[in-house]
Amino acid sequence: MSAPEHLLLVEHDVEGHATGWVDADPQSSQLRVTDVAATRGDGVFETISIGSGHPQALDAHLERFARSARMLDLPEPDPSLWADAVRALAELLADHEEAWVKTVLTRGVEGQSMPTGWAYGTVSGDFRRERTEGIDVVLLDRGLRSDAAATSPWLLAGAKSLSYAVNRAAVREAARRGADDALFVSSDGLLLEGPTSTLVLRRGAELLTPPTDLGILPGTTQVDLFAAAPDWGLQGRVATLRPADLEEADAAWLVSSVRHAAPVRSVDGAERSIDSELSAAMNGFLRRRLR
Amino acid sequence: MSAPEHLLLVEHDVEGHATGWVDADPQSSQLRVTDVAATRGDGVFETISIGSGHPQALDAHLERFARSARMLDLPEPDPSLWADAVRALAELLADHEEAWVKTVLTRGVEGQSMPTGWAYGTVSGDFRRERTEGIDVVLLDRGLRSDAAATSPWLLAGAKSLSYAVNRAAVREAARRGADDALFVSSDGLLLEGPTSTLVLRRGAELLTPPTDLGILPGTTQVDLFAAAPDWGLQGRVATLRPADLEEADAAWLVSSVRHAAPVRSVDGAERSIDSELSAAMNGFLRRRLR
Repeated sequence: MSAPEHLLLVEHDVEGHATGWVDADPQSSQLRVTDVAATRGDGVFETISIGSGHPQALDAHLERFARSARMLDLPEPDPSLWADAVRALAELLADHEEAWVKTVLTRGVEGQSMPTGWAYGTVSGDFRRERTEGIDVVLLDRGLRSDAAATSPWLLAGAKSLSYAVNRAAVREAARRGADDALFVSSDGLLLEGPTSTLVLRRGAELLTPPTDLGILPGTTQVDLFAAAPDWGLQGRVATLRPADLEEADAAWLVSSVRHAAPVRSVDGAERSIDSELSAAMNGFLRRRLR
Repeated sequence: MSAPEHLLLVEHDVEGHATGWVDADPQSSQLRVTDVAATRGDGVFETISIGSGHPQALDAHLERFARSARMLDLPEPDPSLWADAVRALAELLADHEEAWVKTVLTRGVEGQSMPTGWAYGTVSGDFRRERTEGIDVVLLDRGLRSDAAATSPWLLAGAKSLSYAVNRAAVREAARRGADDALFVSSDGLLLEGPTSTLVLRRGAELLTPPTDLGILPGTTQVDLFAAAPDWGLQGRVATLRPADLEEADAAWLVSSVRHAAPVRSVDGAERSIDSELSAAMNGFLRRRLR
């Protein structure tokens, strides 16, 4: 356990307001077994990349953290307090080119009405291979129709909740099929997102990504890439996408906060071309963001 | 915090085998924030009712615990060790007519390959009102087709995983609609199960419940009721059921380990008849089971 780890416990009052944080030892036990984080996956989280001490896309992450909390009827997380906590951890990790901080807000210990919160930071793994050589992806049915978020909000489609067992099972299923990652498809055949990533395609001079009203997460990394796209002579656009669009695209990526832009080099075993130059530009940009 | 609580931590070796358990204080922190129970809902559980010190349907619960573990690619829980742990907690709760024990097995702390396990026991709430007056239920789309378990095992339909945020959101949605509980329906219109219960209908001299191959949990309470049904002049049968079957049934219940048999007195605001006599017989039987 040589990787540096840091933990802040974000304390709350009975009204659900965060009151501050305290340092804690990440190697020690900090949660009760009756916290619904552990018994019900009943909470929300964000994972924020830290580049040489700079939290990246922090505002977008904290907006999404608040959005997920609303979808789960949790108290609104105080953006400035959480931002300060993330920055405090980022400073502790400033010696590392790539690190990440996870923020978690849970409904708390069963029977009490006080949320549990924490922010945990550590250094990132080495994703150079994925970023340059690419990843093998399989398409997996997510089972839900593309209108599930609108018709059935209790399914929490598009909330970044702690109930990620299905996302983890999807990655294991991908591994079982000899692949690195999965890309979810709606039951009515629309491309959605990866278990922990957003889909981005290049078609000519356009970057394309699926709309969030399909019950997927608003991608914080994707938004930054679309903002930078003009520097690469490209234009970002939201578009309804099907497997044929992926097949015909000039290039495809699964983008996320820690792995950044992983070019897709095969889909369901069928090889596809990757855009090495643009992948390098994207990852260089993502790694060096100062905010 | 007057309710008695007891906790045993079930320890594992790096091969995933349980090696024994130790007493622990349920009021103290026992889990690390990097346990995937807390960050990914990545584990399985069971809730076993304890009637005056007797674990009820223990074998069925531990079989289902093992089945859920297999569905999540977790190590097989050792049935005799877990049974002993449940019995040890049951003895501590023997002064109470109704109590329950929760068993939990998680994939453990991120980056280590050692499961985390615990068994937690406490006394039950008072469900007399629900058992006699009945509950108001709303039908909620679960979003998945009835064949999801067969076609898409990575969706974990029918696994009792810790990723229960959707089940909790469904109960909040029910409350928002003025009801007590939800009953899930598949996207192709078949009745499934409640967020924490099994559906049982009475039609004439038959008790009916939906088939588990619809991606629902095998109901431990339902199995015991079906075994006892001949004592009440009834015969249990598994049947594909639709909302019209619920409407036309002579009586309906959501049955579960702790609340036992809760008669359904309304569905989506439409009142329906309850069978008070049979409800009382069922609950008397369920509460007094010695195993």
